[in-house]
Amino acid sequence: MDEDFRTLEFTPDGLRMIDQRLLPGVLEYCTAASSEDVASAIREMIVRGAPAIGAAAGYGVYMALLEAGDDRELFLRKCGLIRNARPTAVNLMWAVDRMMRKAEGCGYSPELLKAEADAIVREDIEANHALSKAGLAVISKGDTILTHCNAGALAACGWGTALGVIKEAHRSGMEISVYADETRPRLQGARLTAWELMRAGIPAALIPDSAAAVLMRGGKIDLVIIGADRIAANGDTANKLGSFMLSVIAKEYGIPFYVAAPLSTIDSATPDGQSIPIEERDADEVRCIEGISIAPAEMPVYNPAFDVTPHQNITGIITERGIIYPPFGRNIERIKSGEKP
Amino acid sequence: MDEDFRTLEFTPDGLRMIDQRLLPGVLEYCTAASSEDVASAIREMIVRGAPAIGAAAGYGVYMALLEAGDDRELFLRKCGLIRNARPTAVNLMWAVDRMMRKAEGCGYSPELLKAEADAIVREDIEANHALSKAGLAVISKGDTILTHCNAGALAACGWGTALGVIKEAHRSGMEISVYADETRPRLQGARLTAWELMRAGIPAALIPDSAAAVLMRGGKIDLVIIGADRIAANGDTANKLGSFMLSVIAKEYGIPFYVAAPLSTIDSATPDGQSIPIEERDADEVRCIEGISIAPAEMPVYNPAFDVTPHQNITGIITERGIIYPPFGRNIERIKSGEKP
Repeated sequence: MDEDFRTLEFTPDGLRMIDQRLLPGVLEYCTAASSEDVASAIREMIVRGAPAIGAAAGYGVYMALLEAGDDRELFLRKCGLIRNARPTAVNLMWAVDRMMRKAEGCGYSPELLKAEADAIVREDIEANHALSKAGLAVISKGDTILTHCNAGALAACGWGTALGVIKEAHRSGMEISVYADETRPRLQGARLTAWELMRAGIPAALIPDSAAAVLMRGGKIDLVIIGADRIAANGDTANKLGSFMLSVIAKEYGIPFYVAAPLSTIDSATPDGQSIPIEERDADEVRCIEGISIAPAEMPVYNPAFDVTPHQNITGIITERGIIYPPFGRNIERIKSGEKP
Repeated sequence: MDEDFRTLEFTPDGLRMIDQRLLPGVLEYCTAASSEDVASAIREMIVRGAPAIGAAAGYGVYMALLEAGDDRELFLRKCGLIRNARPTAVNLMWAVDRMMRKAEGCGYSPELLKAEADAIVREDIEANHALSKAGLAVISKGDTILTHCNAGALAACGWGTALGVIKEAHRSGMEISVYADETRPRLQGARLTAWELMRAGIPAALIPDSAAAVLMRGGKIDLVIIGADRIAANGDTANKLGSFMLSVIAKEYGIPFYVAAPLSTIDSATPDGQSIPIEERDADEVRCIEGISIAPAEMPVYNPAFDVTPHQNITGIITERGIIYPPFGRNIERIKSGEKP
C-alpha cells in the first residue's frame, strides 16, 4: 500500500469507502451495505473519480448478484441502477459491463464475480503505477506542474493518475512543485488534492481556478497534467469542468498539456467529445457551500460537472502502456490493441 | 435614484455603507465614524468596486480634515492611510489626490471639501448613466452577455458600469440575458451581481468561473462586458482575477470583449499593465468560505485579487464620453483631453 488510507475496500459488511464529502476536515469511512447504497454513494459523490467509481461499481454488481439470487431480471435492474448513477465517467459503464459479462461467463458464481471486482481494483492500482512511471518522461527536474480537480489516490483505487505521475516524480527526487486548482464548484482540488499533496510532502500551492491563467502567462507553469473521466476514440477528453479552459490557455502560451488515465478510461465506442454525455448537477452545488447560501436562493444556475478538451489541445495521453501522442485516433487504436505506443 | 438601496451615503454619523460582505443574505448598513474606519472598510471590503472605493475615500479625506483640524501633518498622514488601503483600484488614489488638491486649493474649508466628495458621487452616477447609454451601441437585441465579478450599483455610487450597460439594455427592451461568473474567491458574482440582476428582473444564470469557457465555445455568449479597477495608458486593464482568462477564451472564439469604466479609472500615469500593482490577499480567502475550512489549514495559497487583460484582447472601452477603440494609447489620450472618441 502506498497511502495510509484506503479509498475503497470490500469488507464483510459491504463496500467501505472514505466519505470524500467530509475531507479535508474529517477522514471518515462509510459502508454501502447494498447495491442500491453503492449507486447512491456514486451519485452523491461519497466516492468520485472515474477509476474509483468503476471499482465501486464492480463491487456493486457483485452485491447485486448476492441480493438478486437466481432472479436474473432483478440482477439486470440492479446493475442498470448502478450503471446509470452518473453519465460521464466511462469507467462506470466499463466496470458494470465487464462484471455483467463475467457473471454470464462464469455461470453467475458469486465467488468468481467477487474475484473479478477484486481484479478491477488490483489492475487499477497496477495501471496507476505503470502510467505514473511512464509519465516521468514528460517531466524535467525542477518543473512546476499545474493540476486540476483530484486525480489522486482518492480518485482511484490507490496511488492515482495525474497526481500519481506527480507523486512518482516527487519520489524520484525530481524536485517538482505543484499548483492545484481549487476546482469549483465542489472544490475537489482544495479539499482532496491539497490534502493528498500535503500528506505526500510535495511543495504545492492552492489557487482559485482563474489564477491558473495568470501563472501560465507569467511563465510559472512548465506543464499541465490532468486526469480524465472519458477519452473518446479521437482523443477528445471529458474531465472536470475547468479542464477545457486550462487547455486553451496552455495552448495560447505553448505549455504542454497532458492527460493521465488508464486505458479503461478510453472509450473506443465514443467517436468524439460531442458524443460524450455531460452531467449537469444541482444548482445548489454552486449556490451553497457547506449548506451556507452564497447566492440568492432562486438564482438560476448552469452547472455542468465536466467539459471536453478537444484533442487538438492535448499534447499527450499518459497510460499504463506508455504515452500516446497525436494522431490520437490511430495511436489510441494501436495501443488499445496491444501495440507499443 | 435608480435602486432601492444606497451603496454609500454620507450622514451626520459618518459614512454609511452597505456591508457588502453580508450580501445576499442580509442587506445591512454600517457606518464608518472616522477616516480610519473608512480605510478599514476599504481594506476589509465592506465597500468594494473601484468607483465606490473612490467615493468612500473622498468622504474619508473630508473626515480626516475634520479630525486633524489645523494639524496639516496629521491630515496628510490620515490621507495616506486611506490612499494605501488597497493598491490596485486607481479610483482610490485618484479620489484622495483630487480631494487633497481641493483641500489645498480651498484653504482647507470643510464645507468645500464635503462638496467635493459629494461631487465625486454625483459625477460617478452621471458617468455610469452616460457610459451605460454609450454601451448600447455594442449590444444587439436578444444578446446574451457574460459578466464577471460585480460592476453594478454596489461597485459604484449607483447604477454601475458593466452591469449599468446591461441594465440599460434591459430597460431599453433589448431582451438581453446574462451569465454571471461567480468570481472566486470572494464570490462577488454570486453574492452581489446575482442579487442585483434578480432585483432588476433581468433573465440571468450564475455559473462557476470555469463554465464561461464552455459557454463561449458553444456559441452561447454574444459579448463579454466587465468593469475595471485600473486601465493603463495603453489600454491594459486590471480587473478582478479571472478577467484575463475570459479575455483569452473570448479571443479564441471571436467574441467581443468590452471593458466598461468611467474615465476616473483610466490612469495615464501607468504606462501599461506590468506597471499596475496587483494586490495579493490573504490565503484564508481561498482556504475558507464563511469561516468554514474547505482546504487543509496549512496549505499554501496564491491569491492575486486582480489580473491584467492585455489591450490586444480588448475590443473596446465603454466610457461616459463614448467607446474607445484601438489603437488605445492614442485614443485614450484623445478622449481624456476632451476630444470625441
